[in-house]
Amino acid sequence: MSAGTIHGVGLGSGDPDLMTVRAHRLLTNARHVAYFRKAGREGQARKIIEGLLRPDVIEFPMEYPVTTEIALGDPAYNEQLSGFYAECAAHLLALAKGGEDVVVLSEGDPFFYGSFMHIYTRVRDHVPVQVVPAVTGMSAAWSATGEPITWGDDILTVLMATLSVEELTARMKTTDALVVMKIGRNIDKVREALKAAGKFDDAWLVEYASMPEQTVQKLSETQGRAVPYFSIVIVHGQGRRP
Amino acid sequence: MSAGTIHGVGLGSGDPDLMTVRAHRLLTNARHVAYFRKAGREGQARKIIEGLLRPDVIEFPMEYPVTTEIALGDPAYNEQLSGFYAECAAHLLALAKGGEDVVVLSEGDPFFYGSFMHIYTRVRDHVPVQVVPAVTGMSAAWSATGEPITWGDDILTVLMATLSVEELTARMKTTDALVVMKIGRNIDKVREALKAAGKFDDAWLVEYASMPEQTVQKLSETQGRAVPYFSIVIVHGQGRRP
Ligand SMILES: C[S@@+](CC[C@H](N)C(=O)[O-])C[C@H]1O[C@@H](n2cnc3c(N)ncnc32)[C@H](O)[C@@H]1O
Ligand SMILES: C[S@@+](CC[C@H](N)C(=O)[O-])C[C@H]1O[C@@H](n2cnc3c(N)ncnc32)[C@H](O)[C@@H]1O
Repeated sequence: MSAGTIHGVGLGSGDPDLMTVRAHRLLTNARHVAYFRKAGREGQARKIIEGLLRPDVIEFPMEYPVTTEIALGDPAYNEQLSGFYAECAAHLLALAKGGEDVVVLSEGDPFFYGSFMHIYTRVRDHVPVQVVPAVTGMSAAWSATGEPITWGDDILTVLMATLSVEELTARMKTTDALVVMKIGRNIDKVREALKAAGKFDDAWLVEYASMPEQTVQKLSETQGRAVPYFSIVIVHGQGRRP
Repeated sequence: MSAGTIHGVGLGSGDPDLMTVRAHRLLTNARHVAYFRKAGREGQARKIIEGLLRPDVIEFPMEYPVTTEIALGDPAYNEQLSGFYAECAAHLLALAKGGEDVVVLSEGDPFFYGSFMHIYTRVRDHVPVQVVPAVTGMSAAWSATGEPITWGDDILTVLMATLSVEELTARMKTTDALVVMKIGRNIDKVREALKAAGKFDDAWLVEYASMPEQTVQKLSETQGRAVPYFSIVIVHGQGRRP
């Protein structure tokens, strides 16, 4: 028997209409669909594809272990997460080796800070794997602001809000266009760094880009407010434009 | 009569199967389709949608003025280009004001270094405009390498090869993950800067990502060779991965 294929399918930024034609076809035909989520939650990826799956689909929700007791820097955290990914990969590998194709969902583009990457490295040497690129959350975010992100030879820097304030500030200072992701609880760090870099007043906050809950605001109008994990901060480039 | 809408439609990286569901629907229904191309060429955007258009579609190819006599830095170059964009915008505006919807094609994502942006700024205040985000060329390029571009809190820098060697080198040195675009005749500058930054051996060259002519190679294996405009250089991030 020949092995099935594991498809890492990027769903795009959230609006099902922004899924690629290929992703849509793979999803609507899939017999096995796997996705990450927090225990007890529906999960953003699963939410995006609601209503698209076959009636006889077999779903495999991969629930992150509850890690609130362990601090993020603690090696035990990494170990627990690594064990979790290994278990998920083993299940998907067993399916594929049994001849089944499996679709693994990914928010945005799978190879751009995507959770699918942790499955990918663990299965790629054992069964066929195909990755379907997708519209990133940041593309939907800058589109939502109604302003192009980059012009001419603008330099674009993409930063994770998990970096230190010092690192964020230094990078923000020296770029033309800016995207900050993984915001959530790190929003105050992002505000502080933008102020130190002199870019606070030019920054936009986009929550849930291209999703029903989308909001678009100047960051300066959100002072003190908490923001969700699915948030992106944008500073547009101002480069050469004939 | 109410005005029609100008749709700036991102086609994605080149494979029609990587078009979004929305782009596909807008294109297959469009009565008016406009796109940029060099005089005498079919044009990459037009090529991507071959076979998808309505039989009664009205096409509006927007042909860049031949500017080889004028140097790129010369103000006359900018003036000529600006006049060209103004003429194109005037034609599209006339259509929309006459009640017609128009689809303007864009390679990749329209707001990411896209030519549509020059139309957008000239029409946005006069008629309804909708922008459809898309899979970027860089997403297709890193997917084609079979390696994720960014992990954990990797910093991603996107550079245009039109920058100076000094600027390219400085930026390449200090980033985790790297994307270089607008390569073509600038490839030797990119090679030199990567060497100076100590990243030449880690760099990949992807030509025509997701198109029939796609090639994926280590940049070091292409020494001295010319590369097309539709090329992207990639250095993958090596961040934290549980
Ligand atoms: C682990 S990364 C995954 C990125 C994804 N692979 C992509 O291509 O966009 C998660 C972060 O992406 C950003 N993000 C992704 N989609 C988003 C959306 N639709 N709206 C706002 N933020 C989004 C948020 O900053 C979030 O914290
Ligand atoms: C004017 S920019 C347009 C970028 C486009 N809006 C996008 O989202 O990818 C043109 C540059 O994009 C890059 N590019 C776009 N699509 C590509 C593809 N499929 N393969 C290789 N390079 C591509 C090349 O570096 C090219 O010089």
